[in-house]
Amino acid sequence: MTDATTESTVLRADGRTPGQLRPISITRGWSTQAEGSALIEFGNTRVLCTASFTAGVPRWLKGEGSGWVTAEYAMLPRATNTRSDRESVKGKIGGRTHEISRLIGRSLRSIIDTKALGENTIVLDCDVLQADGGTRTAAITGAYVALAEAVRWAREQKLIKPNARVLRDTVAAVSVGIIDGVPMLDLPYVEDVRAETDMNVVVTGSGKFVEVQGTAEGAPFDRDELDRLLDLALAGTVELSRIQRETLGEAA
Amino acid sequence: MTDATTESTVLRADGRTPGQLRPISITRGWSTQAEGSALIEFGNTRVLCTASFTAGVPRWLKGEGSGWVTAEYAMLPRATNTRSDRESVKGKIGGRTHEISRLIGRSLRSIIDTKALGENTIVLDCDVLQADGGTRTAAITGAYVALAEAVRWAREQKLIKPNARVLRDTVAAVSVGIIDGVPMLDLPYVEDVRAETDMNVVVTGSGKFVEVQGTAEGAPFDRDELDRLLDLALAGTVELSRIQRETLGEAA
Amino acid sequence: MTDATTESTVLRADGRTPGQLRPISITRGWSTQAEGSALIEFGNTRVLCTASFTAGVPRWLKGEGSGWVTAEYAMLPRATNTRSDRESVKGKIGGRTHEISRLIGRSLRSIIDTKALGENTIVLDCDVLQADGGTRTAAITGAYVALAEAVRWAREQKLIKPNARVLRDTVAAVSVGIIDGVPMLDLPYVEDVRAETDMNVVVTGSGKFVEVQGTAEGAPFDRDELDRLLDLALAGTVELSRIQRETLGEAA
Amino acid sequence: MTDATTESTVLRADGRTPGQLRPISITRGWSTQAEGSALIEFGNTRVLCTASFTAGVPRWLKGEGSGWVTAEYAMLPRATNTRSDRESVKGKIGGRTHEISRLIGRSLRSIIDTKALGENTIVLDCDVLQADGGTRTAAITGAYVALAEAVRWAREQKLIKPNARVLRDTVAAVSVGIIDGVPMLDLPYVEDVRAETDMNVVVTGSGKFVEVQGTAEGAPFDRDELDRLLDLALAGTVELSRIQRETLGEAA
Amino acid sequence: MTDATTESTVLRADGRTPGQLRPISITRGWSTQAEGSALIEFGNTRVLCTASFTAGVPRWLKGEGSGWVTAEYAMLPRATNTRSDRESVKGKIGGRTHEISRLIGRSLRSIIDTKALGENTIVLDCDVLQADGGTRTAAITGAYVALAEAVRWAREQKLIKPNARVLRDTVAAVSVGIIDGVPMLDLPYVEDVRAETDMNVVVTGSGKFVEVQGTAEGAPFDRDELDRLLDLALAGTVELSRIQRETLGEAA
Amino acid sequence: MTDATTESTVLRADGRTPGQLRPISITRGWSTQAEGSALIEFGNTRVLCTASFTAGVPRWLKGEGSGWVTAEYAMLPRATNTRSDRESVKGKIGGRTHEISRLIGRSLRSIIDTKALGENTIVLDCDVLQADGGTRTAAITGAYVALAEAVRWAREQKLIKPNARVLRDTVAAVSVGIIDGVPMLDLPYVEDVRAETDMNVVVTGSGKFVEVQGTAEGAPFDRDELDRLLDLALAGTVELSRIQRETLGEAA
Repeated sequence: MTDATTESTVLRADGRTPGQLRPISITRGWSTQAEGSALIEFGNTRVLCTASFTAGVPRWLKGEGSGWVTAEYAMLPRATNTRSDRESVKGKIGGRTHEISRLIGRSLRSIIDTKALGENTIVLDCDVLQADGGTRTAAITGAYVALAEAVRWAREQKLIKPNARVLRDTVAAVSVGIIDGVPMLDLPYVEDVRAETDMNVVVTGSGKFVEVQGTAEGAPFDRDELDRLLDLALAGTVELSRIQRETLGEAA
Repeated sequence: MTDATTESTVLRADGRTPGQLRPISITRGWSTQAEGSALIEFGNTRVLCTASFTAGVPRWLKGEGSGWVTAEYAMLPRATNTRSDRESVKGKIGGRTHEISRLIGRSLRSIIDTKALGENTIVLDCDVLQADGGTRTAAITGAYVALAEAVRWAREQKLIKPNARVLRDTVAAVSVGIIDGVPMLDLPYVEDVRAETDMNVVVTGSGKFVEVQGTAEGAPFDRDELDRLLDLALAGTVELSRIQRETLGEAA
Repeated sequence: MTDATTESTVLRADGRTPGQLRPISITRGWSTQAEGSALIEFGNTRVLCTASFTAGVPRWLKGEGSGWVTAEYAMLPRATNTRSDRESVKGKIGGRTHEISRLIGRSLRSIIDTKALGENTIVLDCDVLQADGGTRTAAITGAYVALAEAVRWAREQKLIKPNARVLRDTVAAVSVGIIDGVPMLDLPYVEDVRAETDMNVVVTGSGKFVEVQGTAEGAPFDRDELDRLLDLALAGTVELSRIQRETLGEAA
Repeated sequence: MTDATTESTVLRADGRTPGQLRPISITRGWSTQAEGSALIEFGNTRVLCTASFTAGVPRWLKGEGSGWVTAEYAMLPRATNTRSDRESVKGKIGGRTHEISRLIGRSLRSIIDTKALGENTIVLDCDVLQADGGTRTAAITGAYVALAEAVRWAREQKLIKPNARVLRDTVAAVSVGIIDGVPMLDLPYVEDVRAETDMNVVVTGSGKFVEVQGTAEGAPFDRDELDRLLDLALAGTVELSRIQRETLGEAA
Repeated sequence: MTDATTESTVLRADGRTPGQLRPISITRGWSTQAEGSALIEFGNTRVLCTASFTAGVPRWLKGEGSGWVTAEYAMLPRATNTRSDRESVKGKIGGRTHEISRLIGRSLRSIIDTKALGENTIVLDCDVLQADGGTRTAAITGAYVALAEAVRWAREQKLIKPNARVLRDTVAAVSVGIIDGVPMLDLPYVEDVRAETDMNVVVTGSGKFVEVQGTAEGAPFDRDELDRLLDLALAGTVELSRIQRETLGEAA
Repeated sequence: MTDATTESTVLRADGRTPGQLRPISITRGWSTQAEGSALIEFGNTRVLCTASFTAGVPRWLKGEGSGWVTAEYAMLPRATNTRSDRESVKGKIGGRTHEISRLIGRSLRSIIDTKALGENTIVLDCDVLQADGGTRTAAITGAYVALAEAVRWAREQKLIKPNARVLRDTVAAVSVGIIDGVPMLDLPYVEDVRAETDMNVVVTGSGKFVEVQGTAEGAPFDRDELDRLLDLALAGTVELSRIQRETLGEAA
C-alpha cells in the first residue's frame, strides 16, 4: 500500500484528497409540516429527513414508560441515473431498503434515552431525492438533525419533561473504501462501484462506534486495511459532528 | 356570474382574492439525474417532477412507430400534517394514488404527438415533498415543464427527429371550489376541506379542456355554479401557462 | 358541429338517435341474500348491485352518531369480449377499479343523510356480469335502487327510525360523448372507443350535479361542446330517475 | 341407521326425500361475450360459468400439440347470507377458493382429450352469484355445459378439427352427506352445516368416478356409510347428466 | 378383488409388494424448542412436525370454552429433485400448500375433543425437509405424534385438566394408487407420477374414515377399484397406528 | 488484549471459556436431493444448507461467461422458543431475513471465481430448523460445505472444467460479543440478548476479512473493544475452517 504522504497527494475525480469529505450542506426545517426536518447534501447526494413526533407507543411497548424511535429509508424512482421501479408499485420492499431502514433506526436509537423520551414515538423518514453514493450515511447524519429538532419541539410543547436528557450524544455516519489500494473517505457513486472494500461507519459525537459494516466487494481485506479505514472514518465523523452542531446552533 | 366587485373583496385566510393564484414557483432542472425535471410550488405545496426518457416502448406497443408517456404520483409519508404509512410498506397502492397517477398520465398524453415521439418512452414521476392542497394540479403543471425539458434533451441527443413537433400544445391544471357560496381559485388545504364543491380542471395553453373533474363534497351543485367555476379555472390556467412558458424560456 | 336538426336524424349502429338511452331494465330483488339488490341492464351491459346493511360503523366513526356508505366495483373476468385476469389472482386492485369504486361511493353518499342513517353501515357491491360500455353509470344507477331497498328493509326491521329521512334525493348517472363531432348519450363499447371526448355525469333526481367527469380522449374540447354534453346528460338522467322511481314503486 | 323405507319418507326442510335433487336449471348462453356460458341453479345456489377459448397454450406446453383446460372459482362478496371481504381487496386468494378452483380444473380435464383440442386453451370461470350449499358441484356441472358450448363454437370456427373428439365423456358433480344418521343428496346450506359427513363426488356420464372427496365434519364414518353415500351420489349424477345433455340439445 | 397371491408377487422398484409400506421411522422430540415434535420418515420422505401449544384461542372463539387446533404445511425449496421458488419470496401461498394445510388441520381436529382441550391453541407445523411422495400422509401421521407429545406436556404443566381426555383416538394417513391396473400402497414419487388413480386416506386408530380423497389422474375409476384401494389403505393405517403407539410408548 | 488467564476463568452458562466455540457438527450430504448439502450444528442451533446447481444464469448475466451464486435464508416457524408466523403466510419477507440472505450470498461470492464456474448458477438455501443464537454464522459456515460439495459434483458431471479452480478459498463465520465487559465467542441466545455489542465476522480460510458487522446493542464501543472482538473472531474461524476441511475430507 502507498504511504501516507502519497495518499494525500492522490487526486480524486472531484479533486478531493483521500481523507476529504465532499461539500456537506444541511438545511434545517426544509419541511414545514414535520416536527423536525433537514435536507442534507453530501455532494450531489440529497436526502430529505423528517422526524414525526406522536404521543403514544406501539402496543407491545405500552405501559413500559419508554418511547420508540424507528426509521424508514426510501429512494425516489429517479434519484439515480436510470429510473428504478417504485417499491409501492412492485408491492414489496427490497432487501437493500429493509437493511438500510434498520441500520438508520438502530443508529439513532443508540443515542436516544428512551426512558427520557417517555411514551412517545418518533419516526424518521429519510427519502433520497438524488443519489450519488453514501445515501445511507447522509441519511443517518441528516436524521440526527431532524431528530434533535423534533425533540426540541416536543420540549417546547411540553410533551417531554423540560430537563429530560433525551439525546445522550450526537451521531453521524460516513462511508470509506479502498480503491486501487488507497483508503478513501466519503465515496461518490463512481468511486463506490470501483471500491474493493466498502465500509459504513456510524460514530457518536464522543467518538465511539455504533456500527461498523465492512464488506469485501472484491478481494478480502486484512487487519491493517481495516485499521486504516477506521482511522479515516473517525476523522470524517468528527467533521460531520461539528457541522451538525453548527446547524443546530449549538456550541462545539 | 356574481358581481366581480363583491367577490374581489372577500379576503381569504392568506389574503388572496377569490380569483387569485397562490405564489407559483417552478425550478427547472432541480434534479441533475433526470432528462427533465422541475420542482414546482403552489404556495406551500411542493412537488418534484422528473421526466425519464428511454428508448423503446412497452411490448404491446412495439412496431407501431408510436411512443408512450405515462405518469406516477406519490406522496412522501410526512408531506402532510400528520404522517401516513408508506404505500410500499403497506404493499399496495391506494385508490387516490392510482386515480391521480392516471389523471396526470392522461393530461400529458393529451398534448403529446406520440407518432412524433417515435418509439420512445417518457415516464413522469411526480413526488409530493410537501402537501398543502392542489397537489395533483401542481403535479400536472410541473410535469409539463419536466416533459418539455426531456423532449428538448432528446432532440439535442438526436433521439427524436429535429423537426418533430412532439408537443402539440402546453398543459396546466388548477383546482377551484365553492366555499360558503363563493367560487374560489387554487385552494390550499384549509379551504379544500371546507369546500362544498371541488373541481380540478386541466386546460391546454390554447384554452381547451383536457379534463373537468367536479365533485360535490357537500351539496350537489347547479349549472350556474359549474359555469362560474369553469370561468375561474380558465383564468387561472392562462396565468399558469404563461409561467410555464417563461420558465422554459419561451416567448409568450 | 352539425345542427340540432341533423343530430336527431343521425342513426347510431343500434338504431338510436343521439339523445336516446339504450333499453334500460332494472330487476329489483334479484339476489335473495342481500338486504337490497338490483340487476340493472343498460343494453347489453349488466351489473348486479347488492346493498349489505350491517349495524355499526368503522372504528374511526364510532360514537359520532353517523352512518357509513361505501361501494366496491368489480368485473367478472369474462364480462368483456376478451378475458381479463382476476384482480384477486393478480393480488392487487387496478387503478380503474379503484377509481370507479370511489366514484360510486361518493355518488351514493351525496344523497344520504348519514345522521339519519344512525350508526349503521351500508356496503354497495356492483359486480359487472357483462360489459358493453357505461358500466360505472349503470352501477351508480342500480346501486341507488339496491340502497333504497336496503333502507326500506332496515326501516321495516326497526334498525333505523321510522320517520328518518335517510335518502335526501335519488341519484342516477349516464355517459355522454362526442363522436365524429356529434354529442351522443349512453355510449356502448363500440361508440366509447371512438369517442373524442367521454364524460360521465352523476345527477340527483332534483337535477343537480354530483359529479362531472369529462376527459378528452382525442382532441381537447371547448366550452360549447361541454355545454351540449351536459344538456344531453341532464336529459338522460331525468329518464333514468323516472325508471328508478317506477322500479321502487314510487309515484313520480 | 334407519332402513331404506324409512329414509324415503323422511321429509327435509324443503320437502325433498333424502335421495332427491333440488330443482335444477341450466340456462345455456346466458353471457353473450364468452365462447360458451351457462347460468346453473341448484335450488337457490346460482353460478355463472363461462368458457373462454383462446388459441395457443401456456409457454411450458408449447410445441407439445396438446391443449390446456383450467378453471377459476370465486364468490361475489354478497353471494352468502353475510358479506365477505373480496379476495382482490385482501390481496390474496383463500385456501378454500384455491382448493375448489383446482377441483373444477381436474374434473373437467378428466373428460377432455387435450390432443384432440390441439394447442388451444379453455379457461372456465365459475362465479357464484348466490350461494346456498353445493356451489362447487353446481360449478362443475355448469362448467361442463359452458365447455361443451365452447368446443362446439371452436368447431364451427374451424379452430379445432371437424372430427376431433375433444370431449371423451360428460361430467357432473353432486354433494352428499349424513345428517342425523341419514344419507342425503344435494345439501343446501342449512343441511350442510349440520352434516356429520360431507362428500363431493364427481362422476362421468358413463358412471365412473373422477373425484371422491369425503370428509368427516363430526364423527368419523365407517365403510357402510361410505358405500351408501356413493350410491346416492351415483344416482344423483345420472340425473344431472341427463339434464346436461338435454340442455345441450343432445339425445340421451 | 384380484387374487392376493398374484398381487404379492408384483415386485416394485424398491422391492416391496403392492400392499407393503416403505420403511417408517418416527423420531419423537427431534426439536427441543417445541412442546411436541416428531421427525417422520416414509422411505426417503422426511417431514419435521412440531406442535406449538399456547394458552388462549383466536378472538372469534373466546369465551366458548373450546380450544383450537390448526396446521400449516410447507416444503423447503430443495426438498424436491429440482428447486422450487419459496412461497415467501413469491409473496403468496400456492393452492397445493393451502389444500394440504387444510387437510392436515381437519384430520387432527377430527380426533381432538376441543372442549377437553380448554381455551388453548395447538398449531401443527409440518415442514417437508425431503420429498419422495406421500408428504401429506407422512405429515398427518407425524403431526399426530407431535400433537400427542404436546398434550402430554400440557398435562404435566397443568395447563389442561389431569383427567381431560383431549385425544379421542389416534389418526394416521397413507396414499394408495392404481399403477398398470394394480392397486398399491404408499407410493414414492416414481410411482405417484405414473398412477392412474391416486387416493389419500386418513383413518383413525379405531379404523374409521376421516378423509377419503380419490382423484382420477388418468382414466376415471370404477366402484370395484375404489373398494380395493380402500382395503389397502385400511390395512396400511393399521400398521401406521401401531408404530405411532409404539413411538409414544403406549401399549397396543 | 486483557489477561488471557482472567478471561479463561470466567465460566459461561454452558461451561465454556470466553474464547471457546460451542460443539460444532457438520453432517455432509444430509439431503439426498440436492447437489450439495450439509446439516450444521453450533450447539443447539441447527441449519440445513443445500446447494442447488443448475446450468445457465439469470438473463442479465447471459453471454458474460460468468456464473452466479446466491443465497436464501429462512427459519421454520417453530425454530425458536415461541412460534413466529410464516413469511409465506404474511405474504412478505421481513427485513432481518432479507439482510441475512444478502449477507450469506455476499460471503460465498467472495471466495468464488465466477469465471471458473462458467455460466452456471448455484443457489444456497439455508433453513434454520432450530435456533439458539448464531444462525447466520452457522448458515455461512454450513453453506460453504454444501457449495464445495456441489462444485465437486459438477466437476464429476463434467459441468465445469476439470481444472477450473472455482473455489479460491474457504469461508466461515462466527459471532462475537461483549457481555458484562467481557468479549466472548459464539454466543447462544441467552448470551446474545444480553450482549452490549454484537459482531458477526466472516473470514476466509487464509485469515482475511470478508465481512465485519459490529453493532452496539447497548453502549457504543471503543476501538480497543473492537480490536479484542476481532481477535476472538479470527481465532474462532481458524477452528471452523479446520472442521470444514475435515468434513470435506481435505488435508489441512
